Amino acid sequence: MVERTELIKEVTDSVIKVLSAYGIEISTDQHQTDIPISVSARHLHLSPEHVEYLFGKGYQLTPFKEISQPHQYACKEQVTISGPKGQIERVRVLGPSRGKTQVEVSKTDARVLGLQPPVRSSGDLADSSPVTITGPTGTVLKLSEGCIIADRHIHMTPADAAHYGVKDGDRTDVAIDGDKPGILKNVAIRVKDTYALDMHVDTDDGNAFLIEGSGRVRLLKKEEQQL
Amino acid sequence: MVERTELIKEVTDSVIKVLSAYGIEISTDQHQTDIPISVSARHLHLSPEHVEYLFGKGYQLTPFKEISQPHQYACKEQVTISGPKGQIERVRVLGPSRGKTQVEVSKTDARVLGLQPPVRSSGDLADSSPVTITGPTGTVLKLSEGCIIADRHIHMTPADAAHYGVKDGDRTDVAIDGDKPGILKNVAIRVKDTYALDMHVDTDDGNAFLIEGSGRVRLLKKEEQQL
Repeated sequence: MVERTELIKEVTDSVIKVLSAYGIEISTDQHQTDIPISVSARHLHLSPEHVEYLFGKGYQLTPFKEISQPHQYACKEQVTISGPKGQIERVRVLGPSRGKTQVEVSKTDARVLGLQPPVRSSGDLADSSPVTITGPTGTVLKLSEGCIIADRHIHMTPADAAHYGVKDGDRTDVAIDGDKPGILKNVAIRVKDTYALDMHVDTDDGNAFLIEGSGRVRLLKKEEQQL
Repeated sequence: MVERTELIKEVTDSVIKVLSAYGIEISTDQHQTDIPISVSARHLHLSPEHVEYLFGKGYQLTPFKEISQPHQYACKEQVTISGPKGQIERVRVLGPSRGKTQVEVSKTDARVLGLQPPVRSSGDLADSSPVTITGPTGTVLKLSEGCIIADRHIHMTPADAAHYGVKDGDRTDVAIDGDKPGILKNVAIRVKDTYALDMHVDTDDGNAFLIEGSGRVRLLKKEEQQL
């Protein structure tokens, strides 16, 4: 998938070159700070043990739709999540299964469930919110922790990171235009060879900033982040 | 209610003076840029005609709870609002009744209803979204326009406006701290003698920035708004 990113960059540069021959100068700077954004609906990741517990012995998750990160996919499988105040049905499982079960919700969802999940990076689950997961045959899985509000983050390759002048673990600011514009702060940078460039926000950020499924945002340079 | 604002300012200044005598210097600048914020849940305002249409001839709205703006109140009365995709029950009516009926929802609500309301200031309803209102006895009111996503705004008195160096109709930037911090742009300034200082955002902004009902935000000065 690194090849895909490289290919996109090469084609983009090629188009910019052609436009330039027509006297249309595209600012490379603008181009450099233009990042795709996707809104992540509530979802969960399941450990291999919990897949079997909820769906039956030897069960394998069924890929249903590719998502923006390579080798990850939405699954056909859906579950119900619940807390002391309420439940939400048809929550999508993302695959493949991974080490620890993790439920990612928005603050709006958390209010429905009656939970107070912390804002965390994926995988950072210590003392996160308890949550109950109910499988399709009624099997109930009570977790003492595992529910978080995912922090705002940008996936990128090492080449992207070099390009934007950031490194894994950095926190940056991102500007969003539109009818309800603004700046999202404390956005985590996640760098890995296998990532594709994409910013992820939850549905609260998506709805607050009127992002319709996807869009493009601007990574602010260090010198723009003085506020 | 202007007296209330004045009183709060006088008490605050007095406390700052006492603290100063103990060697604790509070920055007046920080104090000046500290504005209360409230999250407005979905609600509606009804014209006098529509109050009678939905609740019966001669019906008067019943005040139930004061809200942050003087002479306005949440009413006992609730209605159902609906659109092509769904409905939301128990939507609170705000009183007193006013010239035109206006339904204020969040983008999250709009998705449930299947509507595409524009982001508008209160009262600016031309070509806003159609919406249906159902009263307690099942009376159905179909409006061809009247549903909006209320823009982010700050109510203040002329004295507040002078204090912050803004005027009615200005658009400013507001910084919010916390675990999901950021800057809200395009925030409308509304100045009136009868207003009390308070910023209003919808539940999407409230949940995106983790504001629990109310909080305090920082109005950015012109020189801080270069982004």
